[in-house]
Amino acid sequence: MPRSALLHRLGVEVPILLAPMAGAGGPALAIAVARAGALPALPCAMLDADTLRRQVAEVRAAYDGPLNLNFFCHQPSAPDDGAQRAWRDRLTPYYRAFDLDLSAQAPATERRPFDAACCALVEQLRPGVVSFHFGLPDDALLTRVKATGAVVLSSATTVAEARWLAARGVDAVIAQGLEAGGHRGSFLDVDPASQIGTFALVPLIRDAIAVPVIAAGGIIDARGIEAAFALGAGAVQLGTAFLRTPQATISSLHRAALAAADAPTQLTNLFSGRPARGLRNRLMAELGPIAEVPPFPTAGHALAPLKQAAEHQGLTDFSPLWAGQAYPLARDDDATAITRQLATAIVGHPRR
Amino acid sequence: MPRSALLHRLGVEVPILLAPMAGAGGPALAIAVARAGALPALPCAMLDADTLRRQVAEVRAAYDGPLNLNFFCHQPSAPDDGAQRAWRDRLTPYYRAFDLDLSAQAPATERRPFDAACCALVEQLRPGVVSFHFGLPDDALLTRVKATGAVVLSSATTVAEARWLAARGVDAVIAQGLEAGGHRGSFLDVDPASQIGTFALVPLIRDAIAVPVIAAGGIIDARGIEAAFALGAGAVQLGTAFLRTPQATISSLHRAALAAADAPTQLTNLFSGRPARGLRNRLMAELGPIAEVPPFPTAGHALAPLKQAAEHQGLTDFSPLWAGQAYPLARDDDATAITRQLATAIVGHPRR
Repeated sequence: MPRSALLHRLGVEVPILLAPMAGAGGPALAIAVARAGALPALPCAMLDADTLRRQVAEVRAAYDGPLNLNFFCHQPSAPDDGAQRAWRDRLTPYYRAFDLDLSAQAPATERRPFDAACCALVEQLRPGVVSFHFGLPDDALLTRVKATGAVVLSSATTVAEARWLAARGVDAVIAQGLEAGGHRGSFLDVDPASQIGTFALVPLIRDAIAVPVIAAGGIIDARGIEAAFALGAGAVQLGTAFLRTPQATISSLHRAALAAADAPTQLTNLFSGRPARGLRNRLMAELGPIAEVPPFPTAGHALAPLKQAAEHQGLTDFSPLWAGQAYPLARDDDATAITRQLATAIVGHPRR
Repeated sequence: MPRSALLHRLGVEVPILLAPMAGAGGPALAIAVARAGALPALPCAMLDADTLRRQVAEVRAAYDGPLNLNFFCHQPSAPDDGAQRAWRDRLTPYYRAFDLDLSAQAPATERRPFDAACCALVEQLRPGVVSFHFGLPDDALLTRVKATGAVVLSSATTVAEARWLAARGVDAVIAQGLEAGGHRGSFLDVDPASQIGTFALVPLIRDAIAVPVIAAGGIIDARGIEAAFALGAGAVQLGTAFLRTPQATISSLHRAALAAADAPTQLTNLFSGRPARGLRNRLMAELGPIAEVPPFPTAGHALAPLKQAAEHQGLTDFSPLWAGQAYPLARDDDATAITRQLATAIVGHPRR
């Protein structure tokens, strides 16, 4: 399937997908990239039905093309009071240092898996593209999603995951290289030590499956897009490239840390219970980036009061600062302008 | 500095460098790639002076162009009897299972750092290219190497390392992405968690330094070479691509494991004391790939009898099976034929 056929199927002119970034991307970012011909996305895992409906309506008021609604497919784990208690114990010195009560609560990020209610919303909203992270929903739900006419995408972090997704009928596989910011989409092999860089993952997956490959991880500028095409990708998915745009909804502290570009990124499970890539901060340095924490997505509950207290003091010690490895290549600019420049650079290339 | 200028400086026609692979590459592999116009290399860290002289003479008898002699620049650590004892204790169950005496000895890999004696050899042999791993030798030795007219290369695994090398006058920096097989060249930040994939590392380093960048890690075929050029590399260094050639000197067990392509690669320090990428085997699975081991390069001493005994039984349980992440893309073929095909694919490209 040549690239043009994939673009036709996705319904866009420009082979760029906005990465769905929970907490960083919303309607404004989606509209901005859509204006330049790329595929917009809304991260839905943290939204209730009303908010999701409102956000889709907001995008639709500005743009009538395909929209990628992204959902998580994790198996919710049973509440684990012992793990929560052990985690609070481990965090006790920080609670004391920030003068917080050990029973303090603060609003924490909730992430719910795709279920029948989400599916009913998709049937109602008919977004055109539906993407999943951490695998796929069960067959019955997947069949319903496909019946809406939606193009179905999901992320693979290994060749085995790509084969698993292709066998279940996804229309394209997102090859999520180790460089990617945010949560690894892993669902078969979650060992961070076996995760593969974009440079190796894209051609390995390209050779293993018949459906098109969308490259993600480490792609910020036209060089990265051209390299992804050379490796066999039919399109690219960019997230970190848009984090410093005015349309991104990250905190000013997160924004400043990206601009300073003086920290490495690491995979960490401290903030949610699953490995995700972000700028190394105090918590990651002091506990180690991968530790025994409560199961996804509940590890963040005990951190929420600390994050709130530290951010009030201008500190990112307990904040997830999601970013891909190539984040120093990203810049402050409008998301539409960035997308247009990338599209021009690709189209302007003699081979494209 | 455009790519042609780098090639002119290296003295080759084809922008491919053979990766120096101690234990896997020798004169036969060097000659084979040189015949196709790429830059040959000899890994010297494990060779005594006589063997090195003999190997260089063997290459020179078949080829009179530039040859890359590669040396290690690690700081040798003081003998640590306590660490050796703890490591043998940890391995005791394996010694028992293989019916080995706990004081058993077997020839172990020695790796010596570049010193005045090595430098005298370089002055005598005048290879044309000298490359270093784990940093650079001290200023006095480096000045002497440069005085031979040699092009000097060294590997960087982070932007800070690339800047450090460029400031000390290397002629080009090898950007060694996380995908690369064998030892990480890290010397400033050795935390495996902060290591960067080729896709992000090449453009980050390209933007940070003025000297040319040679991409390494995950590059097996023409797709990878084209992608590396798109990211800003002036040449590429390939190692894993040649492991399955008849000219490679790996064991038949290592060769069979590569062909089976059923194990992931991981970074492990078990075999030498420093992180290096190889196929996951029993030892890595059971102890975890990164553990408390004696300092580089002595961690392999206590493993040598186990490796020998297991290999006699056809097992790779204790053998380092170095390989890059993209190793399933490599194939059985002659090294000259592989190099010629890659060179043709690059030159045949309309833009090249």
